[in-house]
Order: sequence, then structure tokens, then C-alpha cells
Amino acid sequence: MLGSVATFGGGAIAQTDPLPSWNEGPVKKSITEFVARVTTQGGSDFVPVSERIATFDNDGTLWCEQPVYFQVAFAIDRVKAMAPQHPEWKTTQPFKAILDKDMKALAASGEKGLLPIIAATHAGMTVEDFTKSVLEWTATARHPRFNRPYIELVYQPMLELLSYLRANGFKTFIVSGGGIEFMRPWVEKVYGIPPEQVVGSSGEVKFQFGADGKPELMKLPKIEFVDDGPGKPVGINRFIGRRPIFAFGNSDGDLQMLQWTAAGEGARFAGLVHHTDATREYAYDRESKVGKLDKALDEAAAKGWPVVDMKQDWKTIFPDGTK
Amino acid sequence: MLGSVATFGGGAIAQTDPLPSWNEGPVKKSITEFVARVTTQGGSDFVPVSERIATFDNDGTLWCEQPVYFQVAFAIDRVKAMAPQHPEWKTTQPFKAILDKDMKALAASGEKGLLPIIAATHAGMTVEDFTKSVLEWTATARHPRFNRPYIELVYQPMLELLSYLRANGFKTFIVSGGGIEFMRPWVEKVYGIPPEQVVGSSGEVKFQFGADGKPELMKLPKIEFVDDGPGKPVGINRFIGRRPIFAFGNSDGDLQMLQWTAAGEGARFAGLVHHTDATREYAYDRESKVGKLDKALDEAAAKGWPVVDMKQDWKTIFPDGTK
Repeated sequence: MLGSVATFGGGAIAQTDPLPSWNEGPVKKSITEFVARVTTQGGSDFVPVSERIATFDNDGTLWCEQPVYFQVAFAIDRVKAMAPQHPEWKTTQPFKAILDKDMKALAASGEKGLLPIIAATHAGMTVEDFTKSVLEWTATARHPRFNRPYIELVYQPMLELLSYLRANGFKTFIVSGGGIEFMRPWVEKVYGIPPEQVVGSSGEVKFQFGADGKPELMKLPKIEFVDDGPGKPVGINRFIGRRPIFAFGNSDGDLQMLQWTAAGEGARFAGLVHHTDATREYAYDRESKVGKLDKALDEAAAKGWPVVDMKQDWKTIFPDGTK
Repeated sequence: MLGSVATFGGGAIAQTDPLPSWNEGPVKKSITEFVARVTTQGGSDFVPVSERIATFDNDGTLWCEQPVYFQVAFAIDRVKAMAPQHPEWKTTQPFKAILDKDMKALAASGEKGLLPIIAATHAGMTVEDFTKSVLEWTATARHPRFNRPYIELVYQPMLELLSYLRANGFKTFIVSGGGIEFMRPWVEKVYGIPPEQVVGSSGEVKFQFGADGKPELMKLPKIEFVDDGPGKPVGINRFIGRRPIFAFGNSDGDLQMLQWTAAGEGARFAGLVHHTDATREYAYDRESKVGKLDKALDEAAAKGWPVVDMKQDWKTIFPDGTK
């Protein structure tokens, strides 16, 4: 399935490295050995193609999540864009804090403050209109530190891993605490994962007939499902209906997905990305407000789960080698 | 993509009929013409493979739903099987009605009576144990009229249609009012549709650690989502995240799915199965308690949606030609 390169002059055939952005080391080895085990016909760990389910967290696992979850950056940008139609926001928190760029006041509003922001930017519109607003944002917004579109801040080694797994018969899924409709518009282009292979948090949606008499799906300001922590195995069961044999996360919100995956019979892979590279990306774990990695790090050590040391294990962080 | 047969002696190549159990007529023609339109590269109605989403109702569309929804038959059989562990059921309705085979009393308990039955047979166990109970039932239970396993009472013409669509790049999904976990254990074998391409009604599930210390998903006696009527486009949006270009149903519970599908831009197919064959299967529509087809039949007539007349359009009803 993998490409191969004929070395001129010698006649020998060298198989190309399917994971060129991964440094040689125990994590890379654990991945390629696992894939070899479950795909070797007749081997004791062979898994039929239909059961090769791989699930990946998104924020911090497939793309960057600092200095804030990118969906929060999207919501903040949307508040700014929508502000001309909402003069009352100039005097209403938490909107005022965003418009005043008063990040301290915004942080003080906490999770409670996030709800009206989510309601204003993620509801009260059809699913198609929301999709449009996401695509407009991914095409124009830029990350404050890297000055690149957010969807370019995906991890090159993980793109290679997704392709490598698919080339070996795996079906790759995203299982994210992020909003399912925030991811679906761009994941196919960016990760090669179709929208129907995304599991995520969601708001309620209502079927109705619009002013034009056509049926539409209206997004309501009510959270329906939180696909995080113990919600992840629940979401996997609901959307996929099979237990993964391979799962990758980066935070305590992924712990139960990893536990659920690892506890299945036969060969299983549960892995973590540890953000250890402040120079090329970010370094954070047990004390971080975003992507806290504490209990899952302990459990990985106890269970022997592979943990990516970003600084050590990844030759490149983002595509194009610019970092 | 379709098979072809070389006719000996002449040298001409005749393409085999991909829908051999469908009689020639306007419905068969509408299907093959639609598929030709959306798959003709360069044509004005061409649809890329990734957007070829086809959704099918299950009960009454892919398999039989009379004299009662097969999931109800399953629940009744499970009550009987579980009765030895529940001596109290001998004196408690609606369980008593089932054990006494008092179908009049069972019917009198109505939908309210169904809830404790669903709770007893579909909850209080892990998702794996529920799957086992479904597979045990599909392997042993027999339909009262046809004396065959329920999973053999699928419609041969629809099996051909599913294969035909897949051969033409479609991804086929089930979108059923039935329980998602009741369908997933057998749909891959029977329809060639993997569990992750099933949308259905669901109960709540909880992640917890079992007595053996292993993580498990426990089914709770609480309905979470009803994938019927206006719930169908909502379920499609939640699970698939794209609007289908092709949808098939057979009852008023499918109307909104068909409306949602038909209202999309470009070429769309919305079709209905009309049960008109009391001899080979069943004949029912506007007055039926199961699979009522009334408003959707009117809308199909008004919108020109193809309607299968089972008696006229289908050469064979069930596989193996036994009926």
C-alpha cells in the first residue's frame, strides 16, 4: 500500500518512510509495529479492515489549541463581525469585553460568559449559514503568533499518521470536545476526513420551514451533547457504534476515550501528544487552562501508552516546514 | 462499474441489469436515469463522489414492518426470555399481558405501556450485552407469517438498489426511527451498510467502571433521541453533516427526510415504497397503525416523487425468491 522508491544504480527497492516527519524513536516504532501487527494476515493480532477504527481528538492533537481553543477565537471574531448589527453589545457583558479587547474582563466572565457568546455566534441561523461563517473565518482569520490561517496550524506528523493509517485500511475519525459543525466544513480538505466521520459537541437543531417556504435546519441556543471526558466514549458509541482499536489524544478530556479503546480485546493503541516545544509551538501540561494534561499523563505512564514528546519526536510541527 | 456479460457468438457486450428484481417501469427508470445524471462527468447534474449521500428508512423500506415493527417483536420475545428472572412480571402490566399472550391488554397499554418494556429489554445492561441479545434473537426468532428469521425479510429489490448506488460511488446510510443499537449488530451482514452509517433513535448511555474494574458503557432507561418525522433531517445533520441527494422512505415518518432531501440544490431523488401486495407481503397505507402512509403519499403525488407500487414494480419481494 505504501509508496516505494527504486534506488538507481543498485536495483534494490527501499520502501519510503510513511512517517517522514517523525524522528526515529519509541513512539514512531510503537505506531509502525502496531500497524504491522493488526494488518498481518494470519497473525494472532490481525484485525479485519471493517474493524480498523481510529479516533483522534482534534484540539491539541491534530491542530494547535493555544493561546485559546481556535473555536473560541472564531467566536470572538464573530462577535466583532456581528457587532454593527448589535449596538446593545457595546454596553452588555461579555460582549463589551470582547469589543473593548478587555481580555481580563472576558476571562472573569468565565464559562458562564461563554454561553451567551456561543448562543450569539453559533445559533439563530441555519446550519448552512453557520457553515458559511466558519468557512469565511478559516479563509481570513490569522493566528496571533504564527500569523497564518488557523487551518494551516495542523500538525504535519499527524497528517502523515492519518494517511498512513488510511493506507493500511483504517477508517479515521475525529472525536473532539469542539463543536461538530465548526469542524465539518473544513476537515475533509485539511485532514482527508469526511464530515460524516466527525464526532463532536453539538447544539440543538430544529427542522422548520423558512420564510421562503423551504425546509431548513435552524440552530438553537441550547447545548445538546458535550463530547468531552466520559462523553467521548459515549459519543463514539453513538456515532460510530464500534470500539476503536487506535486512539490519540492530548489532554485529560481524552482520558476516557483512551481507557475505552485500550480496554478492548486484542491489540490496541492509545497514545498522547505531550506539548513540550515552546520554541516551535507551545509547552504545557498539568497546569494549563487549555488542554490540561495531568491524570492522562499519569495513566499513560502507568499503562505504558506511547507519549509523543513533541520536541523530541517531531521533525516538523506544521506543514510546509515553516516552523 | 457495473458487471457486463459477453454474449458468445456475437461479440457484442450487453451490460447486465443492476436491478434485476425491479420490473421495467417509471420507478426503475427514474432511479437509473437519476444515477446516470449525477454520475456523468461533465454533465450539468454531476455530483462528486464525496457528496453522493443516500439515506434509507429501514422499517417498511428495507425490511418488512408487519404485523408489528420487528423491534417490538424483539422486545416481546426478550420479555418472555427474561421472565424467569422477573417473577414479579406475572402480576405486573404490561409484562403480564405479554406472558399471558393477551395482545388485547398489551395493545390497550398503548405507547405508555411500551416504555417499561423498552426499559426492561433495552437498558440496564452494557452495550455489548445488548448487542449479544440482538444477535441471539436475529439468529433464532422467526416471523409468525413467513416462518423465516426476521433478517431474511429484507426486500431483494432494495438490496439491489443499495448495491447499485454503492457501485456508482454513493455512500449508503440507514436513517430509521428504530433503535440504532438494535440495527447495528446485523446491518453490515444484511445490507452491506457498516454500523457507523446507521442513524436511528437512541437511549442514553453512561461511561462507568464495571465490577471488574474495566470501563463499560451502560444503557440507561431514558430515551435520548427520536429519529422520526422532523427528527430525521435533524439526525441526518447530526450524524452525517451533509444533505442527502437520494432518499427513500415508506411512511409519514419519512416525510421530512424526503422534503429535506428534495429541497437541496441540483438533482435530487426522493422516493417512497407503497405496500400494495397483500399476497406476497402486506397492503396498507393511510389507515395503518404501523407504517402509516398518508401525508407523504399526497406530497409524493404533488411533487412527482417516484412511488414504488410493490405489486407492480417488484418481481421478487424477499431474497431467495421464496415469495
